[in-house]
Amino acid sequence: MSFGLSPLEFRESIRSGKHTGNTSGYCPGYVQGNVVILPRDWASEFLQFCQFNPKPCPLVGMSDVGNPLLPTLGAGLDIRTDLPRYRLFNDGLVTEELPDITDYWRDDLVTFVLGCSFSFEEALTADGLEVRNVIEGVNVPMYRTNIPCRSAGRFSGNMVVSMRPFLAADAIRAIQISTRFPSVHGAPVHFGDPSLIGVEDINSPNFGDSVTIEEGEIPVFWACGVTPQVALEQAKPPFCITHSPGCMLMTDIPNSQLAIF
Amino acid sequence: MSFGLSPLEFRESIRSGKHTGNTSGYCPGYVQGNVVILPRDWASEFLQFCQFNPKPCPLVGMSDVGNPLLPTLGAGLDIRTDLPRYRLFNDGLVTEELPDITDYWRDDLVTFVLGCSFSFEEALTADGLEVRNVIEGVNVPMYRTNIPCRSAGRFSGNMVVSMRPFLAADAIRAIQISTRFPSVHGAPVHFGDPSLIGVEDINSPNFGDSVTIEEGEIPVFWACGVTPQVALEQAKPPFCITHSPGCMLMTDIPNSQLAIF
Repeated sequence: MSFGLSPLEFRESIRSGKHTGNTSGYCPGYVQGNVVILPRDWASEFLQFCQFNPKPCPLVGMSDVGNPLLPTLGAGLDIRTDLPRYRLFNDGLVTEELPDITDYWRDDLVTFVLGCSFSFEEALTADGLEVRNVIEGVNVPMYRTNIPCRSAGRFSGNMVVSMRPFLAADAIRAIQISTRFPSVHGAPVHFGDPSLIGVEDINSPNFGDSVTIEEGEIPVFWACGVTPQVALEQAKPPFCITHSPGCMLMTDIPNSQLAIF
Repeated sequence: MSFGLSPLEFRESIRSGKHTGNTSGYCPGYVQGNVVILPRDWASEFLQFCQFNPKPCPLVGMSDVGNPLLPTLGAGLDIRTDLPRYRLFNDGLVTEELPDITDYWRDDLVTFVLGCSFSFEEALTADGLEVRNVIEGVNVPMYRTNIPCRSAGRFSGNMVVSMRPFLAADAIRAIQISTRFPSVHGAPVHFGDPSLIGVEDINSPNFGDSVTIEEGEIPVFWACGVTPQVALEQAKPPFCITHSPGCMLMTDIPNSQLAIF
């Protein structure tokens, strides 16, 4: 078990091959990140895409060109070895899953780290709210919407959203709490009637698992970190690396540092 | 016309009998308040009721016993003369409406000033949101709910709410903005299905006027300053004075000073 480790110890346990699975529930209180690694000639357009679409693509860190270290995110953090599992993309398609990308590192690669909803889910739970996907032990349900992202060069696409059901009073509290965390998707983008954002069947998510929606509860939708992945699949850069779903980058940044007030 | 006056000038125009009508739209940018004046032997229970129920009864000021001046709310502010219209209550019933209460002032009276939704409506409008009752030029619709207030001595009753309809994305923004203003009712207490808070017919408000709810819009409910008035009617103090609806106390406090961040 790797529970109780510091983020540094947890990354070392991943680097040494001891921890190989997903990262949910580890190092509570610390920011975990989505990772996108792109060649330099795609990086500036992707950066612009993130700047244009901060709710689905909230940047919490970015490396120098060719540098695999991200010292502002973690002591000794080496992006080539510190994720449990990576996905290699060629022309927008996953061609390989692997636990180490040292052999694929290149001098022109740029790493982007995007905030992840684990941070605000922790804040919701700490406030006494019931986060259904956490309670039911499943992945959060995610849906493709008809909400267009603002295009940047070759990157475009519609927003993907995650959904958590709440009673209205709890939804209001969840809006207040997640508003404090703009670096991890911030406030919801929609609630209520799913069809208004192009979601036809709330019980059939496009990604993740479906969760129970109780009588009187309202589905609340947040911009989701799968959005950039969909944009990548559409843009089809010849080469690209991401984390595997659920196998996030563990940083040394306390979640509370992302709170803006 | 009294538009363009400072709060001090506006109060002088009321005091001299020049301005006699309601105060909506005057001195934009300044806090207007609900007023409740009670004898000392009822005041501490009413203060406790406000403390127990800060969303419907947000206290922005309180006088010393017997002192008609409220210098922290306005230069030279005299509560006996500075409202356009007052209501006298005897045993919970309105017995008189009048423009000056100097003849009724007593050494045991305590004045309470409670925040009013004009302040957050101004912030919503400034942010580009359409406040339906403002657009339609009517009073905001208000409803009795089944949400109980916490009782304090002889004061009790259910919460009264005001309703403003918004599309979901605008409702989220409205929640964020009104959260910044806890002294003027703060965040909503409910949205969506009115029956969940005991409101049977959204088109038949108990106070104020009904407003249009467009396709796709969600009714959003805020705690309302009529709540203390209902509690007063039920508690039936032998003597009590309030403002007349719409004829609020104009203060020297900028709305922005009520924002907590």
